[in-house]
Amino acid sequence: MSIRIGILGYGNLGRGVESAIRQNPDMELKAVFTRRDPAALKIRTENVPVVSISEAEKWTDKIDVMILCGGSATDLPKQTPVYAKMFNCINSFDTHAKIPEHFAAVDAAAKEGGKLAIISLGWDPGMFSLNRMISTMILPEGNNYTFWGRGVSQGHSDACRRVEGVADARQYTVPVPEAVEKVRNGENPVFVTRDMHTREAFVVAKEGADKEKIAEEIKNMPNYFADYNTTVEFITEEEMKKNHAELPHGGFVIRSGVSGFNKEHKQIIEYNLKLDSNPEFTGSILVAYARAAARLSAEGKSGCFTVFDIAPAYLSPLSGEELRAHLL
Amino acid sequence: MSIRIGILGYGNLGRGVESAIRQNPDMELKAVFTRRDPAALKIRTENVPVVSISEAEKWTDKIDVMILCGGSATDLPKQTPVYAKMFNCINSFDTHAKIPEHFAAVDAAAKEGGKLAIISLGWDPGMFSLNRMISTMILPEGNNYTFWGRGVSQGHSDACRRVEGVADARQYTVPVPEAVEKVRNGENPVFVTRDMHTREAFVVAKEGADKEKIAEEIKNMPNYFADYNTTVEFITEEEMKKNHAELPHGGFVIRSGVSGFNKEHKQIIEYNLKLDSNPEFTGSILVAYARAAARLSAEGKSGCFTVFDIAPAYLSPLSGEELRAHLL
Repeated sequence: MSIRIGILGYGNLGRGVESAIRQNPDMELKAVFTRRDPAALKIRTENVPVVSISEAEKWTDKIDVMILCGGSATDLPKQTPVYAKMFNCINSFDTHAKIPEHFAAVDAAAKEGGKLAIISLGWDPGMFSLNRMISTMILPEGNNYTFWGRGVSQGHSDACRRVEGVADARQYTVPVPEAVEKVRNGENPVFVTRDMHTREAFVVAKEGADKEKIAEEIKNMPNYFADYNTTVEFITEEEMKKNHAELPHGGFVIRSGVSGFNKEHKQIIEYNLKLDSNPEFTGSILVAYARAAARLSAEGKSGCFTVFDIAPAYLSPLSGEELRAHLL
Repeated sequence: MSIRIGILGYGNLGRGVESAIRQNPDMELKAVFTRRDPAALKIRTENVPVVSISEAEKWTDKIDVMILCGGSATDLPKQTPVYAKMFNCINSFDTHAKIPEHFAAVDAAAKEGGKLAIISLGWDPGMFSLNRMISTMILPEGNNYTFWGRGVSQGHSDACRRVEGVADARQYTVPVPEAVEKVRNGENPVFVTRDMHTREAFVVAKEGADKEKIAEEIKNMPNYFADYNTTVEFITEEEMKKNHAELPHGGFVIRSGVSGFNKEHKQIIEYNLKLDSNPEFTGSILVAYARAAARLSAEGKSGCFTVFDIAPAYLSPLSGEELRAHLL
């Protein structure tokens, strides 16, 4: 019997999850839940209903795992404890500083409902965390370096769009090649923010806007750009559509450690992602962990989990025997 | 209280484990067990006894985890089921085709003794398997590529040494750069063995030996070299000592997948190792999983496990709270 999935929230990530479900024959999309008018929302999968979020409670018997695809700022902190009482839930909550608080709220809710939730999935937090953690355990003496990009940061693109005179913007985060080189060589450099990444903003200015002022405002924006070397390039609306329609991203986590009786041997572990589509990759991770959630729940487990708590075998539909024979 | 470790077998890997234990403050080396005369074996850690393997049974109360550091050809298949009855055991059994049979034997033994074993740890099998498996679950449509090197293959070095007229030899396995490039570009190429790796043999010939004959014999050796482009370079004993004393290795596992409603997006996951010391890195992995074995055993678990069955949190001495706060 397939694992019946619900998607709650149908933006870029929701569509990424929908697409990933099609690549997993043991998964079935049962319904998409939305705060919008369901009649107005067209999804890509035929014969799957779009349901108002207010009706979700009626679906508790028809959904094995609900994948919450809202944002981390306001949607997920509110929604996850609510729905974790009714459904096994998966989310991509990525506000690192608030994870402990979010975990506690979801854990209490899931236990109350006898359900299971896995939070903070995706690639960072998620796969990057997993690799950082395992690598740190293997090489306890060393340093972790995380580089992001080259890829579109949606948060930084939004920040540019809020600047007066900006009609549209796309921001790419770019690792500094010399910094990457030093880390890969095991030099264990000490960096300030500016050393590791540059930022490239492509901006469509409104007619008559003061471009010099826009560029200055972006470059000096605190938190987002002030600590980086940023370039601002003005382009036309047509160029934006033609060259910046996709959401590529990626990055790499490097553990640079030492081993040996005299710590004389350098040991470098790198986990590296090159993604044509950030939301589809994140969606693919959520779907793989939805399988784990369904299986752990079927074993009677409940409460909140993270990527650290899931034995990898639970991600696979194969048996332990098959995994050992073919993938070990 | 520290986790009390025994090392069984004191070759390169045993020394790698010994060295790794020093980097983990919650671990303590209790004894090294050997088939040799214990009095003749000098280890690097002071005040730790070297004990004859025949005395191992007397140590069942003093050792939390026994790390078996013998070879996969004959030592581990025999030793692991014997000692898994008495101790929680860790090994690096790497004969892929025989893993199911080995698993069954160790599982039965460990369950009989109420002990827990984790087999086939290291980087391949081990970390490479883990990454292959997780990546395959995230990107179900795609191909896996495994490249080894540049590094010393001890099996191939030994094979060269068995050729008549060879005094010493060191063999490096080297990924073919053009092949790596194609895979990293997401071209999903189809390879034959020769396309992915070349082999470089550095050979010290015995006095008066026929070098041309040695080179031909190495290059045409079935299983080991015949399917590869191999270069043989003759060097002096001094050059061997000076330039080839270390055991570096490494390699990378690449998952090249697609996502999207029309499979239009390439998604590439790479896990990459650059190791100055192969045995010390393998030893570091065994020690991290020894911690998992001790913790799972303390929870009452028994039987045989692999890297697929271990939730990553068990590798760490930190609590779930600490992990979530600092590493997620």
